[in-house]
Amino acid sequence: MSEFVTGHPSTHGDGYQLNTTNLFRQAVVTHPEQEIVFRDAAGAWRSTSYEATWRRVARTANMLDGIGVRAGDVVGVLDWNHLRHFELYWAIPGIGAVMLQMNLRLAADDLAYVVEHAGATVVCVDESLLGVAEDLAARCPQVRHWIVMSDRPPAEIETSLPDPLDHEALLARQDEEFGWPVIDETSAYSACYTTGTTGRPKGVFYSHRGIVLHTMMWAADQAVGDHDNVLLTTPMFHAQCWGLPQVAVYARARVVLPGRYSVEEIGVLAQAMVDYAVTVTNGAPAIFAPMLEYLRSLPEPPDLSRARMISGSTEPPLSLIRGFHDLTGASIIHGYGATETTPLVTSNRPKPSLEERLSEEQRWDLKRSQGLPVAGVDVRLLGSGGEFLPHDGKSAGEICIRGPWITESYWKSDDEGKFHRGYWRSGDIGVITSDGYLKITDRLKDVIKSGGEWISSIDLENALMGHPTVRQAAVVGAPHPRWQERPVALVVPEPGHEVDVDQLRTHLSATFAKWQLPDEVLVVGELPTTSVGKLDKKVLREEYADFYSGR
Amino acid sequence: MSEFVTGHPSTHGDGYQLNTTNLFRQAVVTHPEQEIVFRDAAGAWRSTSYEATWRRVARTANMLDGIGVRAGDVVGVLDWNHLRHFELYWAIPGIGAVMLQMNLRLAADDLAYVVEHAGATVVCVDESLLGVAEDLAARCPQVRHWIVMSDRPPAEIETSLPDPLDHEALLARQDEEFGWPVIDETSAYSACYTTGTTGRPKGVFYSHRGIVLHTMMWAADQAVGDHDNVLLTTPMFHAQCWGLPQVAVYARARVVLPGRYSVEEIGVLAQAMVDYAVTVTNGAPAIFAPMLEYLRSLPEPPDLSRARMISGSTEPPLSLIRGFHDLTGASIIHGYGATETTPLVTSNRPKPSLEERLSEEQRWDLKRSQGLPVAGVDVRLLGSGGEFLPHDGKSAGEICIRGPWITESYWKSDDEGKFHRGYWRSGDIGVITSDGYLKITDRLKDVIKSGGEWISSIDLENALMGHPTVRQAAVVGAPHPRWQERPVALVVPEPGHEVDVDQLRTHLSATFAKWQLPDEVLVVGELPTTSVGKLDKKVLREEYADFYSGR
Repeated sequence: MSEFVTGHPSTHGDGYQLNTTNLFRQAVVTHPEQEIVFRDAAGAWRSTSYEATWRRVARTANMLDGIGVRAGDVVGVLDWNHLRHFELYWAIPGIGAVMLQMNLRLAADDLAYVVEHAGATVVCVDESLLGVAEDLAARCPQVRHWIVMSDRPPAEIETSLPDPLDHEALLARQDEEFGWPVIDETSAYSACYTTGTTGRPKGVFYSHRGIVLHTMMWAADQAVGDHDNVLLTTPMFHAQCWGLPQVAVYARARVVLPGRYSVEEIGVLAQAMVDYAVTVTNGAPAIFAPMLEYLRSLPEPPDLSRARMISGSTEPPLSLIRGFHDLTGASIIHGYGATETTPLVTSNRPKPSLEERLSEEQRWDLKRSQGLPVAGVDVRLLGSGGEFLPHDGKSAGEICIRGPWITESYWKSDDEGKFHRGYWRSGDIGVITSDGYLKITDRLKDVIKSGGEWISSIDLENALMGHPTVRQAAVVGAPHPRWQERPVALVVPEPGHEVDVDQLRTHLSATFAKWQLPDEVLVVGELPTTSVGKLDKKVLREEYADFYSGR
Repeated sequence: MSEFVTGHPSTHGDGYQLNTTNLFRQAVVTHPEQEIVFRDAAGAWRSTSYEATWRRVARTANMLDGIGVRAGDVVGVLDWNHLRHFELYWAIPGIGAVMLQMNLRLAADDLAYVVEHAGATVVCVDESLLGVAEDLAARCPQVRHWIVMSDRPPAEIETSLPDPLDHEALLARQDEEFGWPVIDETSAYSACYTTGTTGRPKGVFYSHRGIVLHTMMWAADQAVGDHDNVLLTTPMFHAQCWGLPQVAVYARARVVLPGRYSVEEIGVLAQAMVDYAVTVTNGAPAIFAPMLEYLRSLPEPPDLSRARMISGSTEPPLSLIRGFHDLTGASIIHGYGATETTPLVTSNRPKPSLEERLSEEQRWDLKRSQGLPVAGVDVRLLGSGGEFLPHDGKSAGEICIRGPWITESYWKSDDEGKFHRGYWRSGDIGVITSDGYLKITDRLKDVIKSGGEWISSIDLENALMGHPTVRQAAVVGAPHPRWQERPVALVVPEPGHEVDVDQLRTHLSATFAKWQLPDEVLVVGELPTTSVGKLDKKVLREEYADFYSGR
């Protein structure tokens, strides 16, 4: 660790706290007229302004204060990307409370655990999600108030929630001014729980300081300004919509809120891109791919050449990146992050030095990588021996991240194993090229640890599937008494072909070292998949847990 | 004042301090190859990289450590915009010491006062400024080390400085790695002294936190990125070159350092704009105007359409703004700030809503105003009664500024009158339009305070000079027993014209209220000017101090 020193006193003072309230308050001073376009519960597009919204934010703050919400309290929100959700983004943290992001797709048990663990005492719920809330009510006795958000009068709303409050009826009685407090910037702004594949969800409590710095970084990283039109595609309960609502307001951009949408209604999003001349949005390939299909179906391809589409979750296929570019001029920009990182850690920007050195094909291919660390974070590769690895494009290690918006712990958890010398351990395995670009090669749980070295199951699978006789392949690490783990390969033959295991081993030897080769290559009829059709490694790992010990 | 509250603990922690060291350290990780172009002492342009420069920064840090500089110590720098000055920008604050910016144009007495008051114990001086340093040496006995920076071997350098150290000879012996400490972010990064027209210079000590936040803000405000070429025109001893060196490195841009230059050699700067395809620079109309003349003299007008030229100091004339645009496509962007504000407080960006509403002429005219407050600062107008005034384009008040990079005091000074409820009082008078644009109308010392109201001397002068018989006009506030001050006007007739005082008063009545009219209009042969040809109001104020009391 580095030495910590205190230098000469400054005359700047430290009285000016980094509060999210300032982002919106200052935007209203310079751009009161800036537009917020939103889709209401009935699916109609409507328009309001920064100034009018800020007055509703103040009403919401007065309402929360009126029902007894105090600094440090936790208020849950169960909503789509609606205007009221956007207002709560400012009102709840603005009074010093914590906005708990409730993932409406979680199982009721897990969601109840999140509400209880975070200590939420008030929950704001959109009318369309009353069923989810009602499932929670009995399991969450510490919730004092359920606030129902709807465009309809309270008399028309039927719910079994205990003593429901009506959001709009309460707001109508409130003042349009609020005496915003100055909040100690290390206080929590919001909370989001990770949905890990193992164990209970884990809580990240973001600070005002972390959110403001992440906002300033992103606005600079993507050059977002008041001439931008920002569409919030990522659900607003996922790591505060990746911070894009705050970036939009900081930049005084036009905000476009699509309300409730689904992949089945992709036209809502795709048409919004065109109708509101969207220049910045965020999402995943699973959303962007059908969006591209929709745009292809239009009589004329739209001009979206100013659009930067920040794409997370998984590596975007080259066909998607080039497809958007060729049809509309839009740029798909791959970014990497997680709930624990607020989330932006890398973004894929082409460096000027590479534009000269790389061929056109290489430049396209580079766009699939996770990109360069954004300014303000330290990204390192942790080797299996606990040392940091060089950036040579070959040394693969666990991606570790440190910075002012990276979590340093989980809420009420002693999961020390997820942290290393001030860095958060992502569980992802990657390399960093000598040009500085991060490339994820594996999930840590998919890596095979053999004799203190790592073997990439994904690389082996890709190589096996590159052979003409193989249709599908899976490689898992089976526990081994001597080597810790050894790779076992399972292959499904291409119809009409026979798999020759020796031939396959020779094929793999061309690119892999001898110790990396699977000791066993088993031919199978099919491989297990998850409910969404992805290869289910968890099942295979269980199946082959005793492969060596059982012999 | 607002209530201060502490909310819920976050899991972000606050261990990651905002240190300027991180800006460069992280840029070297992603863009080691990025270029720094610099002009050496002999006037030759040379090139280096971020990585090579960072190694020299580490050597410089080791050198300073080796001669006993510790965290909290103050190191003065007396240099032009040379590469070594740029290296010291990172090395001195990087070890937790303070970089004292020494204005080489100050009188020796004032500069010695600054060095003593700030407590500098080491001074780094460029060979070309040895004369200035030698004048200081006897007056600054607490300076332990004078370090001479030169491209020539020590044996060739003649100086009367006591025991001079040779910068390059010391650097040659140092290690290229340095164990950078983590610095408490509220510690001072650098110090700069104001050169007020009255009293001794006053010290501002900028914090690491303030500098980093100002950097992040500016990078977003002007969309500076790694495809930009940034020319540092403003002297590096003026409010850390307005923060542009830090912005350039944060954005991983190409840096262009012009070394020593003067208005007489304007071709050096203007040609650099062309040769290095400069896209961002900073300066004042006094520099940009001759630069435009030079560019006009080229056989072909250069294409500088990507260039944003941040222009401070005084309001840029419309002829300069349009001249640059019409000849080269470059944008002159007026910004407002001061030593006390790091400095950026406003920047003149056209809002999207105005582009539709204003005519082309109005849009050009708007560019002369100080612009919109940048994100992160609060700008208010303080009325003569101590209240904040509305933003209506008419209410004129003293411009007051608050924010994380605005000074909250002066170093070792009890000048409380310069601060008001957490705001720094600029001494400038302005209005803010309902669109949010700041327009400076007067300096506070040029405003006439009459019966609790303010009269603008500049407005009166402009109106008088608008009359065909008047060549020059000056209006000063003469102390008055009843009204506190009353305006006295002095006019120099246009050659061949006779001034009719009654006619002038009728002329003024068209735009001014009766109580605002000067009680006396005196016809004079000439008006006193300063050494740089500006109207010397100070002399006039002294001359008319007893105008009413003496009667």
